[in-house]
Amino acid sequence: MKERVVLAYSGGLDTSVCVKWLQEKYDAEVITLTLDLGQQEDFSEIAARSKATGAIKHFQVDAKEEFLTNYVLPSIKTNGMYQGKYPLATALGRPLIATKLVEVAESEGATAVAHGSTGKGNDQVRMDVTVRALDPNLKVIAPVREWNMSRDEELVYAKKHGIKIKPSNSIFSIDQNLWGRSIESGPLEDPNTEPPDSAFEWVTPPHKAPDSAGYIEIGFVEGVPVTIDRSEMNGLELIRHVNQFAGRYGVGIIDHIEDRLVGIKSREVYEAPAALTIIEAHKDLEQLTLTRNELDFKAGVEREWSWLVYSGLWMDPLRFALDSFVRTTQRRVSGTIRVKLYKGGLRVVGRSSKNSLYTSALSTYTKASTFDQSSAVGFIELWGLQSRIAAKIASDATGEKNVEHPKRKQSQALKQKSK
Amino acid sequence: MKERVVLAYSGGLDTSVCVKWLQEKYDAEVITLTLDLGQQEDFSEIAARSKATGAIKHFQVDAKEEFLTNYVLPSIKTNGMYQGKYPLATALGRPLIATKLVEVAESEGATAVAHGSTGKGNDQVRMDVTVRALDPNLKVIAPVREWNMSRDEELVYAKKHGIKIKPSNSIFSIDQNLWGRSIESGPLEDPNTEPPDSAFEWVTPPHKAPDSAGYIEIGFVEGVPVTIDRSEMNGLELIRHVNQFAGRYGVGIIDHIEDRLVGIKSREVYEAPAALTIIEAHKDLEQLTLTRNELDFKAGVEREWSWLVYSGLWMDPLRFALDSFVRTTQRRVSGTIRVKLYKGGLRVVGRSSKNSLYTSALSTYTKASTFDQSSAVGFIELWGLQSRIAAKIASDATGEKNVEHPKRKQSQALKQKSK
Amino acid sequence: MKERVVLAYSGGLDTSVCVKWLQEKYDAEVITLTLDLGQQEDFSEIAARSKATGAIKHFQVDAKEEFLTNYVLPSIKTNGMYQGKYPLATALGRPLIATKLVEVAESEGATAVAHGSTGKGNDQVRMDVTVRALDPNLKVIAPVREWNMSRDEELVYAKKHGIKIKPSNSIFSIDQNLWGRSIESGPLEDPNTEPPDSAFEWVTPPHKAPDSAGYIEIGFVEGVPVTIDRSEMNGLELIRHVNQFAGRYGVGIIDHIEDRLVGIKSREVYEAPAALTIIEAHKDLEQLTLTRNELDFKAGVEREWSWLVYSGLWMDPLRFALDSFVRTTQRRVSGTIRVKLYKGGLRVVGRSSKNSLYTSALSTYTKASTFDQSSAVGFIELWGLQSRIAAKIASDATGEKNVEHPKRKQSQALKQKSK
Amino acid sequence: MKERVVLAYSGGLDTSVCVKWLQEKYDAEVITLTLDLGQQEDFSEIAARSKATGAIKHFQVDAKEEFLTNYVLPSIKTNGMYQGKYPLATALGRPLIATKLVEVAESEGATAVAHGSTGKGNDQVRMDVTVRALDPNLKVIAPVREWNMSRDEELVYAKKHGIKIKPSNSIFSIDQNLWGRSIESGPLEDPNTEPPDSAFEWVTPPHKAPDSAGYIEIGFVEGVPVTIDRSEMNGLELIRHVNQFAGRYGVGIIDHIEDRLVGIKSREVYEAPAALTIIEAHKDLEQLTLTRNELDFKAGVEREWSWLVYSGLWMDPLRFALDSFVRTTQRRVSGTIRVKLYKGGLRVVGRSSKNSLYTSALSTYTKASTFDQSSAVGFIELWGLQSRIAAKIASDATGEKNVEHPKRKQSQALKQKSK
Repeated sequence: MKERVVLAYSGGLDTSVCVKWLQEKYDAEVITLTLDLGQQEDFSEIAARSKATGAIKHFQVDAKEEFLTNYVLPSIKTNGMYQGKYPLATALGRPLIATKLVEVAESEGATAVAHGSTGKGNDQVRMDVTVRALDPNLKVIAPVREWNMSRDEELVYAKKHGIKIKPSNSIFSIDQNLWGRSIESGPLEDPNTEPPDSAFEWVTPPHKAPDSAGYIEIGFVEGVPVTIDRSEMNGLELIRHVNQFAGRYGVGIIDHIEDRLVGIKSREVYEAPAALTIIEAHKDLEQLTLTRNELDFKAGVEREWSWLVYSGLWMDPLRFALDSFVRTTQRRVSGTIRVKLYKGGLRVVGRSSKNSLYTSALSTYTKASTFDQSSAVGFIELWGLQSRIAAKIASDATGEKNVEHPKRKQSQALKQKSK
Repeated sequence: MKERVVLAYSGGLDTSVCVKWLQEKYDAEVITLTLDLGQQEDFSEIAARSKATGAIKHFQVDAKEEFLTNYVLPSIKTNGMYQGKYPLATALGRPLIATKLVEVAESEGATAVAHGSTGKGNDQVRMDVTVRALDPNLKVIAPVREWNMSRDEELVYAKKHGIKIKPSNSIFSIDQNLWGRSIESGPLEDPNTEPPDSAFEWVTPPHKAPDSAGYIEIGFVEGVPVTIDRSEMNGLELIRHVNQFAGRYGVGIIDHIEDRLVGIKSREVYEAPAALTIIEAHKDLEQLTLTRNELDFKAGVEREWSWLVYSGLWMDPLRFALDSFVRTTQRRVSGTIRVKLYKGGLRVVGRSSKNSLYTSALSTYTKASTFDQSSAVGFIELWGLQSRIAAKIASDATGEKNVEHPKRKQSQALKQKSK
Repeated sequence: MKERVVLAYSGGLDTSVCVKWLQEKYDAEVITLTLDLGQQEDFSEIAARSKATGAIKHFQVDAKEEFLTNYVLPSIKTNGMYQGKYPLATALGRPLIATKLVEVAESEGATAVAHGSTGKGNDQVRMDVTVRALDPNLKVIAPVREWNMSRDEELVYAKKHGIKIKPSNSIFSIDQNLWGRSIESGPLEDPNTEPPDSAFEWVTPPHKAPDSAGYIEIGFVEGVPVTIDRSEMNGLELIRHVNQFAGRYGVGIIDHIEDRLVGIKSREVYEAPAALTIIEAHKDLEQLTLTRNELDFKAGVEREWSWLVYSGLWMDPLRFALDSFVRTTQRRVSGTIRVKLYKGGLRVVGRSSKNSLYTSALSTYTKASTFDQSSAVGFIELWGLQSRIAAKIASDATGEKNVEHPKRKQSQALKQKSK
Repeated sequence: MKERVVLAYSGGLDTSVCVKWLQEKYDAEVITLTLDLGQQEDFSEIAARSKATGAIKHFQVDAKEEFLTNYVLPSIKTNGMYQGKYPLATALGRPLIATKLVEVAESEGATAVAHGSTGKGNDQVRMDVTVRALDPNLKVIAPVREWNMSRDEELVYAKKHGIKIKPSNSIFSIDQNLWGRSIESGPLEDPNTEPPDSAFEWVTPPHKAPDSAGYIEIGFVEGVPVTIDRSEMNGLELIRHVNQFAGRYGVGIIDHIEDRLVGIKSREVYEAPAALTIIEAHKDLEQLTLTRNELDFKAGVEREWSWLVYSGLWMDPLRFALDSFVRTTQRRVSGTIRVKLYKGGLRVVGRSSKNSLYTSALSTYTKASTFDQSSAVGFIELWGLQSRIAAKIASDATGEKNVEHPKRKQSQALKQKSK
C-alpha cells in the first residue's frame, strides 16, 4: 500500500515541486492542505494547482479566527517582538499549520506530513517540533531540505515535470498572514542595500503617504484591542483595518539583522502595519496601568516568550506558564490609546484608562499636589545607603587611579574657571 | 562664622529663589556653580544674575568633554534608555553636577551643598546620593523640597525679595544638555493631550520638515560614533551635528508615561534627536557584530544600567561592573550604519562592518550557499527533544480540557472544509 | 470620643509596652489581636497579659490553615528563598497579620491599627504596605519606631508602668511560625561569632543527633507535599512532622548575612527544618519533571517572588502574576522524593514521578539506548556556529595580547613535554 | 601521505579503542596527548599504554597551573554552578584539553584532532566547538560517537585488537580533575537508587567521618582563596588541601538530575569537596562585601556563565564579557570565612572583611545604633505607593471573587474568635 502524506501547500514553487517529489521519491499519495491565515490569496486557484500537480485530495481550512484567538491575541498581550523588531507573524502561523497537518493526517490515515521549509531557516524547526510534540508517531518530511536544491534547480525540476507555477515576476520570496508579510531574497540579501519600494505591498512609501497626519484611537479591554475610534470591531476586521490605515500612512516597514535559531544572521525585511501600531499602543497602555514592578519583570517575560515562539518551541510548557503570567497582568490593561501616524512615523499622543496609576494629584507641580515631599528625604536616605557606603569603600580601596571615581582628577579644570 | 553653601545654579526661578532662601533661612554664604553640559545658555547672563541675587562667588565650569566621555559615551555603548523610551539626558547630567559641587565645596571650604530639586522627582535622589557617596561629611540642602513651595508661591517670594527672573514666556519647565531636552508642566500634565508644537525647540514639526528624505552615515569604532558620512568628527561636534540634522527632519520627539523612582507615574515629553538616531544605529551595528548570546544577555544589562542611572545609583558599584561588561562587548562593534530620516520617521537602511557575523555565503538561498542543510535535522531533533516529551506528558495529564493543546477540539471545523 | 486602635499583639516586651504607650500618647482604646500561625505559644497567657496591660478587648485567631494554604504552599511551589538562604517564614506571616488587623479594625470600628515593628527592619514595611493597600483609610501606628526606644529603655518604661513581661531568660529576640523560627540580637550581632547551641530550639545540635541516618519520603501532587512515607497527611500536620523529624537529625540551621530592604546588612540566624527539607525535595522533583527551559526561567521567577515577599510587596500585582506562572508549571510536579538526613546534613537520594522527563532509554550508555548519536553532529555544528565565527573575529581583531585566547602563549610549556 | 591525528588520550577503554580505530578506519598516524589537570593518575603508565596501542608519539602536558588560573579561579569568582548543583569540573577542563589539542596539532602538522566523547553527552560539544573556534581548518573526529558502540561492544573490539585495558574493577565511568570527580553508569542510572558508598573515593562516608567538627578558615583576596587558617598557600596546594580536609569530614557529595545540552535528563553524581566548600565560603563573603544590587544582578550573571561553560560555549565572546563583569565585582571581595564541617554537613559560622558593608552600628538593637528610624517612614510611603494603588484598583476591578485578595472572605472565622 502506498504511503500517504499530508503536505502543507501554499501553491508556490517550493511546495508544488514537493508534491511531485513526494510522489516520485517516496511513491506516496499526496494530500495537500492550505490554511487561510488571512494572507488574502486566491484559494480556488491554489486548489486547482494542487489538483494539477497530482495531489489526490486537497483541504482548505479557514483558520483565521483560531489564529487570531490562540496566537495573535496572546502575542499582543505579550508585546511579542523578537529581538525588539520582528512581530513574529510567520513564527506564530507555523505551529497552527503544523497542528492542522496533524489533524488531517490523523483523520485521513496518513503516516507522514510534509512541509516546504528549507534547512536554513526557522520554519523547519517550528514545523518539525510541533508536529512531533502533537503526534510522535507521524513522520515529518521536508523535501526542500532533504534535496538541498537551490531555487534555480527547483525551476528546472518544475519545468521537467510539467509543474505549472504561479507566474511570479517578483524577485522576492514572500510569506504573509494577517499579522505581517515577510520579504526575502534578491537584493535584500545585501544588508547594506536599502530595500526598493517595489518590495512593499502593504505599506505606501512614506513620501507618497497623505500630506496630513492621521489619528486612530484603539480601545483595549484586558489587553485585547476591541474598538477603533470608539466603535467596536470584530477582531479580524480590526486588524485588517489597522493594517490598511497605518499602511496607507507609510507605517509598518521593518528592516533589521536577525539571528535565526540555526546560528545564521540574516537580513530581514517585513511589513507589519497593524502589529507595530497595536503593540506600540498596547505598551503605552501598560505603562499607564501596570506597576513598575510588573513592567520591569514583564519585559523579561516578553523577551523569553518571543524567543520560544521564534525558535519553534511553541509547545514547550514554559510557553504555557508565560502565558499565565501575561494573562494575569492584563486584567487591568483596559483603556484607550490615541496614535498619530504621518508619513512613516508613529507616535502615541494620548492615553486614558479607568485603571490608570497616573494620578495628576500626585505628579503635578502646582499647589494641587497631594504628594508629601518630605517622604522623599527618608526614602533617599535608605535608597542610597548601601551604594554610598560601598562606593566609599571602593574609592578608599582603589585610590586615585580608579577612572570610575573621577572626583578628584578633574580638579585642575575647575580651578581655572572661577570668576 | 557663617555656614558656606555651594549651590548648583541654573539661573532660573527655582535656583534664584534658593540663593535668597539659603541666606535668609540658613544665614549662609552662598557660592553658585553652573555647569556647561552643552545646554547652550548665555552663561555670562547667569553669572550676572548670580551676583544680583547676592551670591558671594560664582563658578562656571565647562564640563562638556567630561560629560561626553564619562557619561554619554558609556550610555551609547549601553544603549541607555529607561523603560525603552527615555535616553537619560538629565539623569546622566546630575551625578556630574553633584561631583562638581563636591569639588567646589571641598576647595572652597564649604560645609554644605545645595540644589534646586523638588521632593517629587528623580533629580533629588541623583544629587543627594552622589554627593554623599563622594563626601559623607557634606550636608545636602534642597530648599525647594524643604520649603514645599508651588511655582506660584515661588514667584511671590521672588517678587517680594526683588529677585529678577529670566523673563520666560514659556508655560513649560525645561531641562537640557547636549544629550536631550526635557519638557514638563502645563498642558503636558494631561497624558491624554497631544503636546503642542510650541513645546519643541530642537525638533522641526514633521509636517514642516524637508520634503525629501535625508541620509546620514554614522561610523563607529568600538561602540563610539566617530565619523559622519565617512568624515571624522570630534565627539561633541558629532552629537551637535546629529542633533541638528535629525531634528531638522522631524526626528527626536518622545512622549510616554514614565515611572519615577519615588513611585509616581508621570507623563514625560523629550526631544533627543541625536540620542534616538545614534542609539538606533548603534543597536543595528550590534545586531550585525555581536553573537545572539551577547545580544540577549546585553539586553538585560542595558535595562539594569538604565535603571541604576535613572534611579540615582550612578555610584553603586554594580554600575562599574555593568560598564566592564559593556566595554568588553564593544571591542567588535565597529562599522558604518546608514540611517534614513524623513518627516519624523527614522530607519536604518544599510550597515557594514569588518567584524560582521552576517555571511551571505551562509544565509543565501542561491546555489552559492555553504551551509550544510542536513545539520539542521540533527539540530532540530535535539533542540525540541525535551519540549516534545514534556508537551506530550502535559497533554496526557490534562486531557482534552487544556486550551493550550487545541489539537483535537477544532477538528469539526476541519471536516467541513475538504473538497 | 477616644480613638480606637487594633494592635498586633505577641505578648512580648515590645507589644506590651505598645499597649500602654498607645493609651498614654494617643489617648486610645487598644484592642489586641494575636494570630496563631503555628508558633506554639500559650495563647491563654497572652490573652491574660493583654487584659493586664489594659486592652479593652482581645482577639485570638487561628489562622494556621489560611497561612498554610495562601502563603506557605505558594512559597513551596516557588521554592521561596530570599538570597538563596532564607525561607521567608516571618515575611510570609506579616501580610496575613496585616490582613487580620484590617478585618478586626473594620469590624470593630477602629480608625487605626498598630504593630510593634522597629524602624530598622523589614516587618514595618510588610505591615504598613499591606494594611494601607487593603484599607487606605486606616492609620498605621508603629510605636517602637516612633519612639525609637532601645530594648533597655523599653524595660525601664515597662517597669515604671507596671507592665508584667513574660520572664525571658533568653538573650535572643525570637519570631516564629510554622514555617520557621528567627533568632536575633545578643552575641549573634557579631557576624564572626558562631551561634551558640542555646540559640536553637527546633534543631538538635548535629553532634547530639542520632547516630544513624534517617530517611523520609515526601510525596508531592502538583507541587504540594501530601504524603510522608507513602501515607497521606494533612498539610499542617505534615509540616509539623517534617519540622520535628528533620530537626531531630540536626537539619534546619541557617546562618547568613542578609540584605534588609532598608539598606542595612544584618546577620540572620534561622531554624527551618521543614522548609529546608521540603524545598530541597521539591526542587529535585522539579529537576525531574520540568523542561530545562522551565527550570531556567523559573529560577528568575523564584528570585523575584522571594524579593517581593521579603520586601513587603505581597500586594503588588506582580506577585499575583508570578503566582500564575508558578501554578501553571506545577501541573506536572507530582512524584516522590527520598531524602536522607544525618547529623545536620541533608541529601536527596531517590526520586520518581509518572511525569518524569528522565528516560533511561535515552541516557543509558548500554546497548539499550534509543538515542541517535548522529543527531549530535548537526546539533553541534549549529549550536556553536556563531560563537565560533565571533571568537575567530575577536581573536583576529585583538591578536596575541588577548588573555582570553590563551592558545598560543602557553606553547613553550608544551614543547618541553613531548616524550 | 598518511593523515596525522592528535587524540586526547586518557589511557582508558574508550580512548585506547580510538587509537586503533583511527588507524584502521582513517589509516591515520595517531599522536596521543594527555593533560595533567590534577587528576592524580600514573602518567607513565598512560604513556606506556599509548605506545602499546601503536601511537606514533605521546605528549604529556602539566596544565595544572593554567587550569587553575584561567578556568578554576574565574569559576570561583563566578560561583560557577550549573543548575545550582554542579561545580563544572569536567566542563571547565574540556576547553583546555581542546586548546592543547590544537596547539599540538599545529606544531606537529596534524590535520585532525580526535577525542573519545560519545554522542550523548556534553563533552563532544565542548571539544568540537572549542577546537573549531581556535582553528577552523582542523577536522574533529569523535570515533565513539561515529561508531556508536556500546561499552560491551568496545570491550569486544579491544579484545579482538589486542588492546590492553587498565584493569578496572569499577562498575562506574569516572572523570576527574582537581576541581571534582564525576561518577556515572551502573546502578546510578536509576535515579531512585541511592549511590553506594563504593562510588566515592574523595569523600569519606559521613558516618565514618570524625566524631567532632572540623573548622577551616579560608582567606580571600579579590575573590581568590589565598590562605588557609591564616597561612598563605599556593593555589593548587590550597585546593588539594581543601579537597582532603572537607572530604575527610564527609563533605562534597552531589546527587542530582541534570539537563544535558543535548536535551537528555541524566542522573549525575559528583564528588567536589573543595568546590563546594570554597564556593560556599566565597558566596558568604560576597554577601558581606557586595551591595544588594550587585548580588542580585550577579546571580543572573552566574547562571548565564555556568550555562555557557556547561554547554560548550567557553569561546563565545559573551563569556569574556561576563568575566569582565565578575572581575570588577571582585575588587572588594577580600576577607576571611570560617567554615564548620561535620559528618557531611557544611556551614559558614564566621566572616570578617575590611570591606564589610555590615556595620553593627546600623543594625544593632541596642542604644549604640546610629540608624535614624524615622527615615523608614518616608521610605515605606514611597516604596509601597504604586503597589498599594494598583492593589486597590485590582481589588475594585475584580471584586470579592478574587482569591488573591482574601481580605473579606475569612471574616466569619474571625467572628467566632473574639473573647
